[in-house]
Amino acid sequence: MRPQSLAKVDYYWNVMKIDPTSYVSKSAAIGKNVEIGPYTIVHDNVEIGDNSKIGAFCEIGLQTTNAQSPKLFIGAESNIRSHSVFYAGSSFGHNLVTGHRVTVRENIEAGSDFQIGTLCDLQGSSKFGNYVKLHSSVHIGQKSTIEDFVWMFPYVVLTNDPHPPSNHLLGVTVSRFAVIATMTTVLPGLNIGEGALVGAHSLVTKNVNANTVVAGSPAKYGGTKDILLDDKSGQAAYPWRFHFHRGYPTSLIDEWVIESQQ
Amino acid sequence: MRPQSLAKVDYYWNVMKIDPTSYVSKSAAIGKNVEIGPYTIVHDNVEIGDNSKIGAFCEIGLQTTNAQSPKLFIGAESNIRSHSVFYAGSSFGHNLVTGHRVTVRENIEAGSDFQIGTLCDLQGSSKFGNYVKLHSSVHIGQKSTIEDFVWMFPYVVLTNDPHPPSNHLLGVTVSRFAVIATMTTVLPGLNIGEGALVGAHSLVTKNVNANTVVAGSPAKYGGTKDILLDDKSGQAAYPWRFHFHRGYPTSLIDEWVIESQQ
Amino acid sequence: MRPQSLAKVDYYWNVMKIDPTSYVSKSAAIGKNVEIGPYTIVHDNVEIGDNSKIGAFCEIGLQTTNAQSPKLFIGAESNIRSHSVFYAGSSFGHNLVTGHRVTVRENIEAGSDFQIGTLCDLQGSSKFGNYVKLHSSVHIGQKSTIEDFVWMFPYVVLTNDPHPPSNHLLGVTVSRFAVIATMTTVLPGLNIGEGALVGAHSLVTKNVNANTVVAGSPAKYGGTKDILLDDKSGQAAYPWRFHFHRGYPTSLIDEWVIESQQ
Repeated sequence: MRPQSLAKVDYYWNVMKIDPTSYVSKSAAIGKNVEIGPYTIVHDNVEIGDNSKIGAFCEIGLQTTNAQSPKLFIGAESNIRSHSVFYAGSSFGHNLVTGHRVTVRENIEAGSDFQIGTLCDLQGSSKFGNYVKLHSSVHIGQKSTIEDFVWMFPYVVLTNDPHPPSNHLLGVTVSRFAVIATMTTVLPGLNIGEGALVGAHSLVTKNVNANTVVAGSPAKYGGTKDILLDDKSGQAAYPWRFHFHRGYPTSLIDEWVIESQQ
Repeated sequence: MRPQSLAKVDYYWNVMKIDPTSYVSKSAAIGKNVEIGPYTIVHDNVEIGDNSKIGAFCEIGLQTTNAQSPKLFIGAESNIRSHSVFYAGSSFGHNLVTGHRVTVRENIEAGSDFQIGTLCDLQGSSKFGNYVKLHSSVHIGQKSTIEDFVWMFPYVVLTNDPHPPSNHLLGVTVSRFAVIATMTTVLPGLNIGEGALVGAHSLVTKNVNANTVVAGSPAKYGGTKDILLDDKSGQAAYPWRFHFHRGYPTSLIDEWVIESQQ
Repeated sequence: MRPQSLAKVDYYWNVMKIDPTSYVSKSAAIGKNVEIGPYTIVHDNVEIGDNSKIGAFCEIGLQTTNAQSPKLFIGAESNIRSHSVFYAGSSFGHNLVTGHRVTVRENIEAGSDFQIGTLCDLQGSSKFGNYVKLHSSVHIGQKSTIEDFVWMFPYVVLTNDPHPPSNHLLGVTVSRFAVIATMTTVLPGLNIGEGALVGAHSLVTKNVNANTVVAGSPAKYGGTKDILLDDKSGQAAYPWRFHFHRGYPTSLIDEWVIESQQ
């Protein structure tokens, strides 16, 4: 035997794409063709762009206080997976894609094509460019600035407090095309240069120059990025944009291929 | 179109503050003015103090066996955020505040003003003093003892098994006012002394003396705490209680200010 | 006052063990005596073996595309705890036990008695033997192979990309009876030998020989496993199977005891 509710759900889902068990505020602006999964809660003053999907068990537009909540804007074509929590007061460009159980606090400004992996914890008050990709369980402290095309891998932490606990927060800046490998901590106020690579399980204690490799705890200079060769192709593994293109649009890939041939 | 359920919820929420989609055991003792969010489950033998809030999608008072569950006590003025799981058989003083998705196992005794960050994982059978503050994703092994005013930052792990897997667990003790920075592991049975500071991304392999700084993997002696100066003020950054007061009551702050002037 | 729904739940729960607030696809094959908790979603083409329990707020059999979903098979006597997400297209032997909020992607083949701790993140396309035990927050990259009786502790990461981001993934192999302690990262393509022990907070950059100990960042040779003595008994702490038997069947324990006496 099955609960009676199933038949009802099939009906609603097909017709409206908003599950009847969800709570959607009457003041939320829900775009065309948006899917909202079972049990999900959409609070006041949320705007969700056309063709987006919100999975089950999410809480979207959570307020921090009892005051009028600031707006949460989720761009079109986005996909927020189940059990995720987004606070009010942030803005995300189109094609935001998240894993499950992400936590996203207030005052975030993010560009388009932002990927936030399962269990990521964004503490808010940060800026993200376009095509930023965070793998699972990345922790971004407040006041961080992450530029276009940055990659961060599981359990990377961007810190912000030089003498915890204190009131003087200094955010980390990660420049475009930089890659931070898994289980790495970046100390407050540092800059990871454009196209730099930080190895796994590192503690970054100094600024990292553009197009260099650092690794270790504390992280030490390991050469320039073109010394790393891909085992399979025998070619330079970096800049990664010269050979890794999955998930980027044709216009960008064309540009990167031309750049690689110069 | 919106599901009909929304109007119903508004009504219940305003009148009773217990969402009609929640499951609340008839044997639970719910204080005055307590809010219980959508879909949350409150099991048998739970007591929740006055003016507390429980967010959506929580499971409060989960039993480990089919036996009569031991009591779970949540003090007054507490705030448990969404998707959190608390097992039966623990006790928390007033003003417990949690982030989202915390997991709290059985046999915990905690004082007042305990702060448990998003994604923290408390394995149970531990003691916490008053005003303990855990940032996100802190993992506390069984048999830990955490004294008053301790701070731990993201991905700190307190271990307990010297030769895993074994049956001889030795808990860590963290003494009052100590601070453990992000991504640090403390080996079993060690003591972090009063007011000590452990730097980020460290592995603590020996006891840490009171009011000293250690850092590294393995962690090494880095001086006494008063060698660390705050960049902005030029004053000693520690003891932190001499200058960091956010979230503490006036009576404590007054005491700390007087102490700092002696 | 309590919501009326509670009484209804008691009734359904006792009679059918499938909570009436859950969504269970008509095409799912649910075994005898299976419990399905409140609000849980069971998608199409899922098979759950007899006497299993699925906790609240789970999503079981999630599809990655709109195509016909491949089968998800959960063996008998399993226990999946609340807020967990399993994708379609994997198979688990009997007595699978999970903590809360595990994320399990597609294309996993796992043996029996698999234990997946709270907040573990299995990226899919991996193989697990029998009696594998993952503590909390273990992250398993794609293409990993984990043999029988392996233990991994919190925040262990098995990586797979030598030059991230790239398309040439090389999975890690962890051989039988090996133990990887907390907060350790294993670089791509490496093998952790049978019965080896990797210490806490290590970065493994080379293959680890059978029955040896390594530790550090980068991990260095620390001797053979029998040099580690248990503090309490004064006996060798490893192989752990000679003295640690909790959770294993009598037939295995008998075999291990005989082996230890030879």
